[in-house]
Amino acid sequence: MTDAAADHFDLIVLGAGTGGYTAAFRAAQLGLRTALVDEDQIGGTCLHRGCIPTKALLESADVHARMKKAADFGVVVDGTVAVDYAVVAARRDAVVKRMTTGLRGLVKRSGVEWVAGRGRLEGPTTVRVSLAGEDGTPGSGGERVLRATDVILATGSRTKSLPGLVTDGVRILTSDDILRRADLPASIVIVGAGAVGVEFASFFHDMGASVTLVEYLPAIVPLEDAEVSAVLERSFTRRGIRVITKARFDTSAVAADDAGVRFVVSRDGEEGSEQIAAEVMLVATGRAANVEDVGLETTQVVVDRGIVVVDDHMRTADPHLWAIGDIVGGLWLAHTAAHEGLIAVHTIAGEDVEGMDYAKQPRATYCRPEIASIGLTEAQCVERGIATRIGKVPFQAIAKAVIGGEYEGFAKVIADAATGETVGVHIIGPHATDLIAEGAVAMVFEAEPWEIALATHPHPTNAEVLAEAAMAVDGRSINF
Amino acid sequence: MTDAAADHFDLIVLGAGTGGYTAAFRAAQLGLRTALVDEDQIGGTCLHRGCIPTKALLESADVHARMKKAADFGVVVDGTVAVDYAVVAARRDAVVKRMTTGLRGLVKRSGVEWVAGRGRLEGPTTVRVSLAGEDGTPGSGGERVLRATDVILATGSRTKSLPGLVTDGVRILTSDDILRRADLPASIVIVGAGAVGVEFASFFHDMGASVTLVEYLPAIVPLEDAEVSAVLERSFTRRGIRVITKARFDTSAVAADDAGVRFVVSRDGEEGSEQIAAEVMLVATGRAANVEDVGLETTQVVVDRGIVVVDDHMRTADPHLWAIGDIVGGLWLAHTAAHEGLIAVHTIAGEDVEGMDYAKQPRATYCRPEIASIGLTEAQCVERGIATRIGKVPFQAIAKAVIGGEYEGFAKVIADAATGETVGVHIIGPHATDLIAEGAVAMVFEAEPWEIALATHPHPTNAEVLAEAAMAVDGRSINF
Repeated sequence: MTDAAADHFDLIVLGAGTGGYTAAFRAAQLGLRTALVDEDQIGGTCLHRGCIPTKALLESADVHARMKKAADFGVVVDGTVAVDYAVVAARRDAVVKRMTTGLRGLVKRSGVEWVAGRGRLEGPTTVRVSLAGEDGTPGSGGERVLRATDVILATGSRTKSLPGLVTDGVRILTSDDILRRADLPASIVIVGAGAVGVEFASFFHDMGASVTLVEYLPAIVPLEDAEVSAVLERSFTRRGIRVITKARFDTSAVAADDAGVRFVVSRDGEEGSEQIAAEVMLVATGRAANVEDVGLETTQVVVDRGIVVVDDHMRTADPHLWAIGDIVGGLWLAHTAAHEGLIAVHTIAGEDVEGMDYAKQPRATYCRPEIASIGLTEAQCVERGIATRIGKVPFQAIAKAVIGGEYEGFAKVIADAATGETVGVHIIGPHATDLIAEGAVAMVFEAEPWEIALATHPHPTNAEVLAEAAMAVDGRSINF
Repeated sequence: MTDAAADHFDLIVLGAGTGGYTAAFRAAQLGLRTALVDEDQIGGTCLHRGCIPTKALLESADVHARMKKAADFGVVVDGTVAVDYAVVAARRDAVVKRMTTGLRGLVKRSGVEWVAGRGRLEGPTTVRVSLAGEDGTPGSGGERVLRATDVILATGSRTKSLPGLVTDGVRILTSDDILRRADLPASIVIVGAGAVGVEFASFFHDMGASVTLVEYLPAIVPLEDAEVSAVLERSFTRRGIRVITKARFDTSAVAADDAGVRFVVSRDGEEGSEQIAAEVMLVATGRAANVEDVGLETTQVVVDRGIVVVDDHMRTADPHLWAIGDIVGGLWLAHTAAHEGLIAVHTIAGEDVEGMDYAKQPRATYCRPEIASIGLTEAQCVERGIATRIGKVPFQAIAKAVIGGEYEGFAKVIADAATGETVGVHIIGPHATDLIAEGAVAMVFEAEPWEIALATHPHPTNAEVLAEAAMAVDGRSINF
């Protein structure tokens, strides 16, 4: 296997995360001879260090939170309820293992050739792979050179910290570190209140830890609609999560030792400051694209502010080199990477497919209450000068949510007043992440709100909130 | 208030169930002067004796079932878990009361005139109402005659038993009886495995009762796709619910006394018989439309086999008399009644709206696993000579379902091979009742499966099962 004679493929996909394997499987379905190269296991960040293990943890937290309220439902515990975090962590790992095994089976069935090793471009359509050895040791299996008509780069991203703040894996943690731990801290301070930050805040609080959430911007989940952010902050605060927005602190003055983590935070525009102390800190301030050591310097690829530049069909400046997923920035979401992958392979296969439109990509955050959205926020409409008509209905008007006992939140449908078309759907509340799929279908069909409402929503379901909000755009909601 | 001088309205809606109040509220929004007449509270069967109290019970059962599995999630109970059925029943009633209060507030805001009393037609557009007294006593408030340009009948339905089987409210119960009880039987036999029967079977089993489910037809949930029925029967049987299909028994030989209910059942086409004994029997064999004592004999209305005949815009044989909801048969579902109501009022208001298409109405059953569907089953396609292309993906391929720990079931998308259009969506599994709303939107747009898949479904969600099944129609699923 040290032979470096080139194999030729129709397509090489470099990186086997969600975007990469989706692209590879579809390419094979379209008849392309395809190689999928990764030094790591199939599934990438999402499966191994992201969505899947996190959601497995959140599911345990949900069970715990629900048990604490079980008496309301007539289910009475005579005794104590405790978290066995070793079991929580083991279940998290078992879920990941199960899905990984499933994907491995799919690779076999797909006809895609799996190449285990680290790939590096040598020019736009040649990949030199440093193969893993029999025992899995990186590089010990020699090298293999692959050539292809087209190459898709899908090398993903990694956690990144703030300037001056060094994560040590013990006191100052990345989400990767959290997802390897098998113990629960008594207290945690989370820096960054994007999707990752609020999910872990919700999780650790539901698991019984003391949680402080620190955000630089004036709102938590700052990319969401402002009303969503407000409801989540209120919910978190009411539950006892300490939320500090407009936070300013000196990263170089963060003390981390055996006693835990301590630092002083102030709020922008406000007097005074406060001391934050916790057993550990989670730094959830974003990710960096893996654009280094990929051999981009051997290609025409343009990297701008750490991101590979592509057109709306995912083509780089090199006509046969494509890029998808976190390395192209966008939304840093697995399902978006998959969609980008599909656009790329269908285009490579010679089909005329619609280009990438990030306004039609749903976003999902699995804190409690859940958040999901698609399209523009109200503020974005204002920025773009789009006159809007808005319908907003709270979950407390929805029988199924009341039945479920969790009815914080709302659905909000935003239509362009000029065209009538739905331009944004925002949901915070029960099952939001499942409900937004309907919004995605509506967006594909450029639905007006009344058309969403024309679809009969079964009663009683949480999904009714979308129909009611859609009708509310025209002042015609029924149950609110 | 004994004055019988006629008041004139644009519209009188007779019956304030889901269909009736939806029609009335929308009529008011469209500028029609509207009266809503009912002797009972607003909300009808669904809110008071149907969906809502049942789903409240099922929610408690879900909490109980989830607690029994909590240790799998790392949440450990040191002690015992028990059901306090008085609390379960009180919560059920509190949910109903809360939603009723909400609707009362909406009546006030709507501008609809609420007329509390029993209405009877005197000709197609006159309603004589026997008013409730100050204390609520029916009829003691005298009479009032209302006239209107149009009248919508929405008098609903009631439980019905099998010929020869008399429900006594003690041992042989209707769903109404069950929903009034504040105690849990140790054992129950349920006759009829439609939506009501399987929901109560699932509920009582999850609450710890011994359950026998008896169905005349060869399959439980016989209106659903055969593969859905098969999965549910397997799931029920595995959980320990005794399922007897093709059941035959002599209704007149059912013994009901202080010891409970006993009868002998055989299976059609099979030798032998078995003795069934339980504390109580639930008769869940369908409903009868309330077409009596409404004054239909004073109109041209045609009643066929107990059902009011209407056209696809809900117009009866009398041009200004309309009928919606359970009295027109159809699907006997609250949300369908509401949709019928909307079609009627928009037509009355002079708009040209699409007629009723029952193939675009979703159906939802809240047993565990949940069932939801829209459009045609595979068998119905065969009957109608529709050549099909089918995609079916199990929930075990869906990461979020695996995370949730309940991943029995599948989604199945059926397309017409000739037109490409989606003609049926069938889901059994987690959150099915919420997920089917997406199918309803897709049906409104006559979506082909690839268009459903073109909508990016957020990852990881249960909703992905629909995208995968839609892609599977073209042999292009990614995660299965």
